[in-house]
Amino acid sequence: MEYRKIKDQENYEDASQNDIESLHGKPLSGVVTNSMPSSVGGLNNKSSWKLKSIVTLALTLLTSSQAILIVWSKRAGKYEYSVTTANFSVEALKCAFSLVALARIWKSQGVTEDNKLSTSFDEVSVYPIPAILYLIKNLLQYYIFAYVDAPAYQILKNLNIISTGVLYRIILKKKLSEIQWAAFILLCAGCTTAQLNPSSDHVLQTPLQGWVMAIVMALLSGFAGVYTEAIIKKRPSRNINVQNFWLYIFGMVFNLIAICIQDYDEVMNKGFFHGYSFITVCMIFNHALSGIAVSMVMKYANNIVKVYSTSVAMLLTAVVSVFLFGFHLSLAFFLGSTVVSISIYLHSIGKPQAQK
Amino acid sequence: MEYRKIKDQENYEDASQNDIESLHGKPLSGVVTNSMPSSVGGLNNKSSWKLKSIVTLALTLLTSSQAILIVWSKRAGKYEYSVTTANFSVEALKCAFSLVALARIWKSQGVTEDNKLSTSFDEVSVYPIPAILYLIKNLLQYYIFAYVDAPAYQILKNLNIISTGVLYRIILKKKLSEIQWAAFILLCAGCTTAQLNPSSDHVLQTPLQGWVMAIVMALLSGFAGVYTEAIIKKRPSRNINVQNFWLYIFGMVFNLIAICIQDYDEVMNKGFFHGYSFITVCMIFNHALSGIAVSMVMKYANNIVKVYSTSVAMLLTAVVSVFLFGFHLSLAFFLGSTVVSISIYLHSIGKPQAQK
Repeated sequence: MEYRKIKDQENYEDASQNDIESLHGKPLSGVVTNSMPSSVGGLNNKSSWKLKSIVTLALTLLTSSQAILIVWSKRAGKYEYSVTTANFSVEALKCAFSLVALARIWKSQGVTEDNKLSTSFDEVSVYPIPAILYLIKNLLQYYIFAYVDAPAYQILKNLNIISTGVLYRIILKKKLSEIQWAAFILLCAGCTTAQLNPSSDHVLQTPLQGWVMAIVMALLSGFAGVYTEAIIKKRPSRNINVQNFWLYIFGMVFNLIAICIQDYDEVMNKGFFHGYSFITVCMIFNHALSGIAVSMVMKYANNIVKVYSTSVAMLLTAVVSVFLFGFHLSLAFFLGSTVVSISIYLHSIGKPQAQK
Repeated sequence: MEYRKIKDQENYEDASQNDIESLHGKPLSGVVTNSMPSSVGGLNNKSSWKLKSIVTLALTLLTSSQAILIVWSKRAGKYEYSVTTANFSVEALKCAFSLVALARIWKSQGVTEDNKLSTSFDEVSVYPIPAILYLIKNLLQYYIFAYVDAPAYQILKNLNIISTGVLYRIILKKKLSEIQWAAFILLCAGCTTAQLNPSSDHVLQTPLQGWVMAIVMALLSGFAGVYTEAIIKKRPSRNINVQNFWLYIFGMVFNLIAICIQDYDEVMNKGFFHGYSFITVCMIFNHALSGIAVSMVMKYANNIVKVYSTSVAMLLTAVVSVFLFGFHLSLAFFLGSTVVSISIYLHSIGKPQAQK
């Protein structure tokens, strides 16, 4: 059952990525109006579909292997390194990756208005709202454990799926067909079923305060995700590596502040990279790559695809863990996986345009 | 968790009803060709829909209350009466109900070719195949417990849902849309999820023989159900009460033989109705009425509706048992109910004719 713990850390990447985004002073409708081109960045439908598939597959595989690395590192021993320095390293690595990608693009295409690194206050200033949302959500996370225990929290986190769907509809004004809504509720039910264990029923004893906080957290998280998509898609022609670069620069700044507050003494005494092992470095690389994959999915696909991708990754992790760590799969896991599979099928056949 | 036990006995009525049906010496295609009128028994679409809804609702409520009566009688004490005499009484009561209904029809409409009680060998001789199928299935039921324990058997019984869908498609040649197939798999997954308990994982240790037997049993049961529908629908204009009367006459004969084999001494020494209590009489009435409801659903709706109806009854029973017996509903129950609800929704919006 240990694979369930993985899920807890699955969304770390999104959080750290979204924390640094800001959308200061912009009316929401302005962000949305210019977004959602039928084909992204001037790509035609076929290559857009191909790109979408590749980034989705990458996100699924990276999220899945990320979770496996976490289990692996836990088995290898306790975290000896400071988490804040690891987070900073992830942001720095993502920044480096973005710069390398940009350098190659500049070499082949030259510097254009869309891929130049320099930016305006107007462009960069649009990130604080998701950051504030994540800040509130992370604060709530400490308080919710007064009302909800860990297995129940694990279950309640699946409310994120529903909130993402609802806010995707409301904020991005994208329509889901009736079948796709049904599929989305099934995805939530299927993921929860797959994670069921004997302690899951604790969630039914959750007091009203716990429910309210869980729903608020799900809304904050969903809102931040959807808002990030709106930001990234606001200027479809803008090179994603530039958008990422600025996101990750803010990420480095935020994490540097976190290091100073939480781990200043430890870093000063033991050094920045104290306790790093080979597996720590693997995890940092993996987190960096999956962070980039999340951005790519936001750019070339959408939040719905991201939710499906991370749900499938959760199932994939469990299956791989059977071979790697000798985990046992429960009947609930098989039932949940069946429901998730049908949800994916229904989502694909239920496209609104296909019906009209 | 006790409500789960109820499910075991839920299908008793179908079995006892179908046991007595025969379809001797008729080629299968002949049965099917004449069946499936667009509106049954000369009814127009609106009253056909009304009739379908009423019999489905009746089956759901009766099946649900049947399960509750079983729990009630178990709480009141052990079964003191002989089960074979109770089964015989059910068949006799159904026969009486059919005759009363027929008498009223004769009074208002007169005796016609379709509602006359007298029958031909050709008409009556078509019942042994489902009877044989049920006989084999009931025999297998004793052997399967060598490989499968009770909670696992409970889970495996949900394979009936899938087998009914598959055989309904093959034997009755009725098409289900892609969405309806997805809905049917969801119904099976949802019902199983709703029934999950800590012992359910035993099913994963089922040996190959157990799986094979469970699948064969599901196919036998599904085949018998679908074949019964084909028999009843073979002559749509034939009055259902006459069809029922002949079914139940055979039921009485079969159960009389069972009494002679199993309980002859007990009945001779203690009397036919020994150990009958008020609740026993209630159960017999309830079984008789739900048996008639099953026949009506087969006549005016189909096996798919019957499967949905009994699945909803299972959920309904659990909810009612919370109030009546203080049962606790598990998280798995809520998740399963959600999946079943969406399955019903998808089945209704996924009608093949609506898409074409």
